[in-house]
Amino acid sequence: MSVSTKKEVVRKFYQLPPLELQSGKVLNEAVLAYETFGTLNQAKDNAILICHALTGDSHAGSSDGVPGWWDGIIGPGKALDTEHYFIICANVIGGCYGSTGPASRHPEDGKPYGLRFPVVTIRDMVQAQYHLVKSLGIERLLSVIGGSMGGMQVFEWAVMYPEFVETYIPIATSARFSAMGIAWNNIMRQAIVNDPDWCQGNYYGRTFPKKGLNLARRLGMITYRSFDLYEERFGREMNPLCNPFSMESEYEVERYLCYQGNKLVERFDANSYLYLLKAMDLHDICRGRGEYIHVLEQISAHGLFIGIDTDFLFPAQELKQTAEQLKSIGKPVQYREMKSIYGHDAFLIEWDMMNEWIGHFLSERRGTV
Amino acid sequence: MSVSTKKEVVRKFYQLPPLELQSGKVLNEAVLAYETFGTLNQAKDNAILICHALTGDSHAGSSDGVPGWWDGIIGPGKALDTEHYFIICANVIGGCYGSTGPASRHPEDGKPYGLRFPVVTIRDMVQAQYHLVKSLGIERLLSVIGGSMGGMQVFEWAVMYPEFVETYIPIATSARFSAMGIAWNNIMRQAIVNDPDWCQGNYYGRTFPKKGLNLARRLGMITYRSFDLYEERFGREMNPLCNPFSMESEYEVERYLCYQGNKLVERFDANSYLYLLKAMDLHDICRGRGEYIHVLEQISAHGLFIGIDTDFLFPAQELKQTAEQLKSIGKPVQYREMKSIYGHDAFLIEWDMMNEWIGHFLSERRGTV
Repeated sequence: MSVSTKKEVVRKFYQLPPLELQSGKVLNEAVLAYETFGTLNQAKDNAILICHALTGDSHAGSSDGVPGWWDGIIGPGKALDTEHYFIICANVIGGCYGSTGPASRHPEDGKPYGLRFPVVTIRDMVQAQYHLVKSLGIERLLSVIGGSMGGMQVFEWAVMYPEFVETYIPIATSARFSAMGIAWNNIMRQAIVNDPDWCQGNYYGRTFPKKGLNLARRLGMITYRSFDLYEERFGREMNPLCNPFSMESEYEVERYLCYQGNKLVERFDANSYLYLLKAMDLHDICRGRGEYIHVLEQISAHGLFIGIDTDFLFPAQELKQTAEQLKSIGKPVQYREMKSIYGHDAFLIEWDMMNEWIGHFLSERRGTV
Repeated sequence: MSVSTKKEVVRKFYQLPPLELQSGKVLNEAVLAYETFGTLNQAKDNAILICHALTGDSHAGSSDGVPGWWDGIIGPGKALDTEHYFIICANVIGGCYGSTGPASRHPEDGKPYGLRFPVVTIRDMVQAQYHLVKSLGIERLLSVIGGSMGGMQVFEWAVMYPEFVETYIPIATSARFSAMGIAWNNIMRQAIVNDPDWCQGNYYGRTFPKKGLNLARRLGMITYRSFDLYEERFGREMNPLCNPFSMESEYEVERYLCYQGNKLVERFDANSYLYLLKAMDLHDICRGRGEYIHVLEQISAHGLFIGIDTDFLFPAQELKQTAEQLKSIGKPVQYREMKSIYGHDAFLIEWDMMNEWIGHFLSERRGTV
């Protein structure tokens, strides 16, 4: 089934089998919205799965005249060369870009789930993706790649389906979400639930909790960037028309944050935002599996870990340490660190480094280097 | 006039002359609440002024059986030895600990100012302190010391009254507030004004905007601490009684943030919070004075600058650079950097380094080393 959205992006939909969630609950009649780029070869051994970040969607590559969010590394001649690889990207369970989430209709009464939607985890997202990939006739992925929340999924892929994954590339992420990360998420969630329009999640068909989601996004935008970038881009610039000595005065950086908040309000569901933050909070490759080092031992794929020196949401140190622990038990892993002014979001901006490192790593695996 | 507060801290009050503000407005009939520790000598040359941070008050040292917020460095045998020095600390204009602020009564109608309170700046705070210090018969301060927003005041003291200040010690602060700092403040302010109970600042005698101020404080608590501290203190600990796979589940770090938010709600005025954040935003020693380096040339006092390596609200780099610029034009300044896991708030915790560095610096100036 192909449906054209407003943006003219053509997504495909996959009907999931009943999904037994990490919580023990079962999610019935759920779908995954996904897109593919490039062509699956006859041997079905050229598939790469992309996992998106918090507010991302399946449109990683460019198609239908609409640029993808990872357009800089997906396409002919790029690291994820669509002339060699078959690229798959699905919107996560819990999301709001076609996959089943809290804004979807509950199969029992046809009304939006709202808070009746079950808590989903990174593992649940990965399990759903696994069903999708298998449904395409693929028995092994050349690579699973993603940044931020996408990188969390990458880690779970490597642990949950070790034989299914030849390589994995977690970027600007961690194997267990940090206390500081949970703290950021707590404040973003609270910003939404404090909004009277949120109405315990029952705002569908009523007033959308704009102010709450806008505020949450402003905070997000801080954690995705760096001190130096803001200093360079905005400094202390203020709208020259406003009186600086008034409570309404607005610095350029404030205008930017408000603009970014409004942009997200136009395109994202507030409940999805809450659920996906909760999934990030719960991310811990050790939960129910024992000691960290024993969990790492279950991984058999080759890893390329990419940290970002200015990332303060996922300090590079975290990925670096995990890479070192993997090396200490003989697991094949490379660690690279981007030097970038862009902070966490560098993985959506620094195309040169991304293409060189990922392209080289994948080519090496294909034996062409 | 001495008034005993609930906490039994005895504050003094100084009636300010009409205060011409940086905005051009005049604040009439304002008072400063202040405290002193130690004894002013006959020559009146042993006075040190302490400037407090955002939610601080005049109770820097211990007295009346109540520990002060800088108790670790104020008192006999400590860096700010009350047997040698006469320590003064005043609540800032715009604050809510006895000095005139938005919760105070407007002299014209006796009702709380609310948003009728004029925007005040760091320079306005310093001007008010200058009047107070002069009223005590003091013609020169041995030192002006403060961290964070207090450090902003310290910089303004050094620029506004160069002949009045022998030494100045700005800590975990900057000479011009950063774009990132303004961004944090924007979100904290927005959290408050989004609260329907805020009512455009007219909440006095009605419901206090608890949720908004609580949320603002949670964000503050993140910026005052470090990633490693949260990791060490909270990690991924969760209340064992809650179901992790529910939207209500709560990690320990979340409980901590909520607790800190509630604590502030009990003791601080939401409008004061808004006004003081605005004052921080407007902090820029260059405004109306020309080039940075020319402004620095106006300083004649000896400086001890203290940065904190894990401070991400005021990265140490900022103070270090300013110190280097001062050195480059021949101004006497020392730069020291704390290594601390505590982040920004290290200046309220790391007593050993603070005592050693500040104590040594002041003793040197007194010629006893």
